[in-house]
Amino acid sequence: MKRLTAYAPASIGNVAAGFDVLGAALAPLDGSLLGDRVTLTEAAAPAFRTSGAFAHRLPADPAQNLVLKAKALFEETFGHLPAFEIHLEKALPVNSGLGSSAASIVAALVAFNAYVGEPYGPSELLAFAGKAEASASGSVHYDNVAPSLLGGLRLVVPGGKARALPFPSDLAFVVLRPALEVATKDARAALPAQVPLADAVAFGANLAAFVQALHTQDSALLGASFQDLLAEPHRAGLVKGFREVQKAALEAGALGCSLSGSGPAVFAVAEEGDEARAVAEAMVAAFRNAGVEADAILCGLDTQGARIL
Amino acid sequence: MKRLTAYAPASIGNVAAGFDVLGAALAPLDGSLLGDRVTLTEAAAPAFRTSGAFAHRLPADPAQNLVLKAKALFEETFGHLPAFEIHLEKALPVNSGLGSSAASIVAALVAFNAYVGEPYGPSELLAFAGKAEASASGSVHYDNVAPSLLGGLRLVVPGGKARALPFPSDLAFVVLRPALEVATKDARAALPAQVPLADAVAFGANLAAFVQALHTQDSALLGASFQDLLAEPHRAGLVKGFREVQKAALEAGALGCSLSGSGPAVFAVAEEGDEARAVAEAMVAAFRNAGVEADAILCGLDTQGARIL
Repeated sequence: MKRLTAYAPASIGNVAAGFDVLGAALAPLDGSLLGDRVTLTEAAAPAFRTSGAFAHRLPADPAQNLVLKAKALFEETFGHLPAFEIHLEKALPVNSGLGSSAASIVAALVAFNAYVGEPYGPSELLAFAGKAEASASGSVHYDNVAPSLLGGLRLVVPGGKARALPFPSDLAFVVLRPALEVATKDARAALPAQVPLADAVAFGANLAAFVQALHTQDSALLGASFQDLLAEPHRAGLVKGFREVQKAALEAGALGCSLSGSGPAVFAVAEEGDEARAVAEAMVAAFRNAGVEADAILCGLDTQGARIL
Repeated sequence: MKRLTAYAPASIGNVAAGFDVLGAALAPLDGSLLGDRVTLTEAAAPAFRTSGAFAHRLPADPAQNLVLKAKALFEETFGHLPAFEIHLEKALPVNSGLGSSAASIVAALVAFNAYVGEPYGPSELLAFAGKAEASASGSVHYDNVAPSLLGGLRLVVPGGKARALPFPSDLAFVVLRPALEVATKDARAALPAQVPLADAVAFGANLAAFVQALHTQDSALLGASFQDLLAEPHRAGLVKGFREVQKAALEAGALGCSLSGSGPAVFAVAEEGDEARAVAEAMVAAFRNAGVEADAILCGLDTQGARIL
């Protein structure tokens, strides 16, 4: 009986400096997996089931599930897939800011592709994933699907492609998951339609400096450019305690701290080891002081991206 | 008798992808110099004189000259300079888009600094130059003073510093000087105060892709990102024939073509040799068809920047 499982990691969208165009795939440092899984099992007739901690939060109508939307998109190009049961293990919280939609979509697409002998390469899968993500968020964004599919820290470049950026291996992502929810659509609505020209220039200059800092291993410039000038000012108020948590992270030695995607997850970047642990503790305590329970996960980059387990 | 001459090269501001934050210092490929010179000669009393093809276009009141403004700025920090005659050789046309103001300011500052034993390093001189440039254009911009002072292709990063970007040595800058003038202040007035958020994101993503392309020697991405999404759409109309010249450059094989700074100078980037020569000819012809006389100069990067001759 034919059977396979695809895994796609959680991801941090924006990564502070790169609103809508930067994303980082996450691999917990304790060796566990943080992402969604899709298992396909040969069956007489198509079937779909879900499990996992957050399965109850998925749409009641299976046709509204992103995995089945991804299947329809895949079949638009490929033609009919053979009959199989799809099992989505939903480990990532929805509306968390950790690329939950992207992980489900990417795991599904990688599973479908593997099941029929990998007719599509990464760039075609990325295009499918972008379209499927658009059906969840309202417009095409690659900042979560690109890292979840391809791994690493990814810069989305013109033409819907994504390039890997070098990231210092001694830096950890401290990921905080507060017991809050922010709908991506609400987070988008918080953004202004227009920005001052000077802000546009500052955003571009800062993002370019971030890319430059990574390529030249310039840690001072990396720290200076690890900031979100475009979205964070408008979204900070949507996450209770965010400013206090950010302050605590920076005071504990973090290089930078911002919202993960549209939140409510918050991430900081700090030196792996004692510093990252101290930053995590300070952030958890700051959330608690604001009346919000949160857990912290220490992660590195998932450089592999989505894969068959 | 103490005497020295400082030279500062012309520069291309914006370099298409980096409105207000990218600049390239120019060195003509024929070995000639394209920039302004400032000679200081020991004298009983301070004196100031100008010469050169464009000296008659300088302000009639010497106190309004940028060289003397730069001197006042330098003295604010250093204290009184000894008495000398300043001779500005103004080789660059004013309001040309080739960093004429920046070259005069930078040559002057480098000359003053050398005359008194180099008390200041590059970052202090850059700060002086930024302030002096602001007195010419109305606000602090480093995109011409940074390359003119430091050489190379420069990215202005947060904190008023400038980093060198790697640029392919086989590419030439084809610089067209049309017999037109655009005042920097008018070119600034043509820009909108606000831009759509999506345009801000596209600008940042494109600039980041440009930096990424340079560091990874990705010529396809370099070509795709060699575009000005922010200023050119609003300024193209200020330079008669620009769109036709741009089209001609790209058809002749240029990687990219845009306004140099706020224009009217136009530049293209093309492979050094036959391709660059063909691009230059096509651009000159296109300007002529639009009723505008223009000359073309083939340049490489001036990697030295300002210097004592």
